[in-house]
Amino acid sequence: MNVIALLSLDLSPAGGGRAIEHQPSAPLLAATDLAATRGDGVFETIVVVDGVPQAMQAHLDRFARSARLLDLPAPEPAPWRAAIDILAAKLRPYPRGAVKYVLTRGDEAGEGAPTGWALAFIPAVRPAGPPAPVRAVTLDRGYRSDVAETSPWLLQGAKTLSYAVNMAALREARRRDADDVIFVSSDGLVLEGPTSTVIARVDGVYTTPPVDLGILPGTTQGDAFRALEDAGLPVAVRRFDIDALRRADALWMCSSTRGAAPVIALDGTEREIDDAVTALANTALDDRRG
Amino acid sequence: MNVIALLSLDLSPAGGGRAIEHQPSAPLLAATDLAATRGDGVFETIVVVDGVPQAMQAHLDRFARSARLLDLPAPEPAPWRAAIDILAAKLRPYPRGAVKYVLTRGDEAGEGAPTGWALAFIPAVRPAGPPAPVRAVTLDRGYRSDVAETSPWLLQGAKTLSYAVNMAALREARRRDADDVIFVSSDGLVLEGPTSTVIARVDGVYTTPPVDLGILPGTTQGDAFRALEDAGLPVAVRRFDIDALRRADALWMCSSTRGAAPVIALDGTEREIDDAVTALANTALDDRRG
Repeated sequence: MNVIALLSLDLSPAGGGRAIEHQPSAPLLAATDLAATRGDGVFETIVVVDGVPQAMQAHLDRFARSARLLDLPAPEPAPWRAAIDILAAKLRPYPRGAVKYVLTRGDEAGEGAPTGWALAFIPAVRPAGPPAPVRAVTLDRGYRSDVAETSPWLLQGAKTLSYAVNMAALREARRRDADDVIFVSSDGLVLEGPTSTVIARVDGVYTTPPVDLGILPGTTQGDAFRALEDAGLPVAVRRFDIDALRRADALWMCSSTRGAAPVIALDGTEREIDDAVTALANTALDDRRG
Repeated sequence: MNVIALLSLDLSPAGGGRAIEHQPSAPLLAATDLAATRGDGVFETIVVVDGVPQAMQAHLDRFARSARLLDLPAPEPAPWRAAIDILAAKLRPYPRGAVKYVLTRGDEAGEGAPTGWALAFIPAVRPAGPPAPVRAVTLDRGYRSDVAETSPWLLQGAKTLSYAVNMAALREARRRDADDVIFVSSDGLVLEGPTSTVIARVDGVYTTPPVDLGILPGTTQGDAFRALEDAGLPVAVRRFDIDALRRADALWMCSSTRGAAPVIALDGTEREIDDAVTALANTALDDRRG
């Protein structure tokens, strides 16, 4: 990970969210910060194209939603927006960069204020050019599709720092000669990737699963859907199962850093990709101006 | 959290696990350490009584087991043992203390070495004296009882830094006027607490669930079972469901920092506690000498 700049945010009552610049490699966090000991916090990653942060409002909204699901204090948008703008400006020399920003429950041995930081980096997965096609495997997420409603303490739908399972799923994908994962609920519904949202063209309709399944609202998928609709293509937010996923005649995995990456293999079976629609979606994504 | 001392371990190839002392409140971790950004690491907490770390070998074994489940490099026991001994000596002035130690996948922007640290602290939950009785609620963990076998990427049975769900479950308990949680599998089997192991006296037998349900091997529960057996009481490692839990005529939640804490209420219903057996177990636990 190539970090260009790092800011902390002073979220103490007196600090007002003031940003402080740090050397990226310098120690920043106490060993007792609940980010490090409990994965107890939330984050977002915004892609920056030509120095402009993309879909900032959608990311700030999702950040606030995740904080609410974790009973964290609601993040004031202004200081986060200011920090993201400072970091995006530092990424102007690069074709593509990203800003990651993090809110934690704070230092367990501290005064009780949350901890906040934001950093600018160059994403290894797509430093420039179009997204690389991905080989995906389906993996059981273990949860029923209704747990977000029955069991909110499972935090499904929150973008938390407790991503060890997501990272383990990606290692399992590599063991299966793949790059990425599409999680499926224990009752067979398609959910999302560990760091992405799925779009499947099922019976001619560009389809993504609804957030009431306990998945994240996809910021990139949302903008890709707007581009598809603008081009007169049918889109739907609708549940579909693993059979429909296999039947889909085109698949994409959407994330901020990658854009809409076409899926060239699913569970080891090669698949058609639709270069025209992939280009349409990614051109629109890269043309966003905020 | 009252931190007494903090050590980092140099786990680089040249470092050989060398311990370095730090001011507890000083920044230690990079903002890009995978502990803080992905909850990607493992930990243990060892209770220290009169300066002696308890059940150290069982904790080191479980640490290695968790690391294996996360595909982390196997921790060399010697430097960890040395760090724990240094910190335990600093806790000698206190009746009860604890050492927490952590291994992470390292700094995402660094050289690839894992990160390690260990700290001595006084547990707020039981700084001295016998364990406080707890009011527990049962909560669905959302997973079937067989996921550790079918879906190892869910990391059930590993003590990871991705504890946001465990912390959310404890907040849910407080909303229900309780202190702690007993997780139940989606198919109705009793599992464990977010930071503890359950012992239920069911039909006269002291019973704890088996680890193949995707739960941690309980170090404190293991030593409590030895004490019960030494006293001629029947123990069993056996699956039991939520009905058996409710039928149990005594319950305990075991953890390093608390010992064997008696459960005085389950899901809002007051329960009998067995003071004699509670004292027997905790006396034996406090008398451990390593």
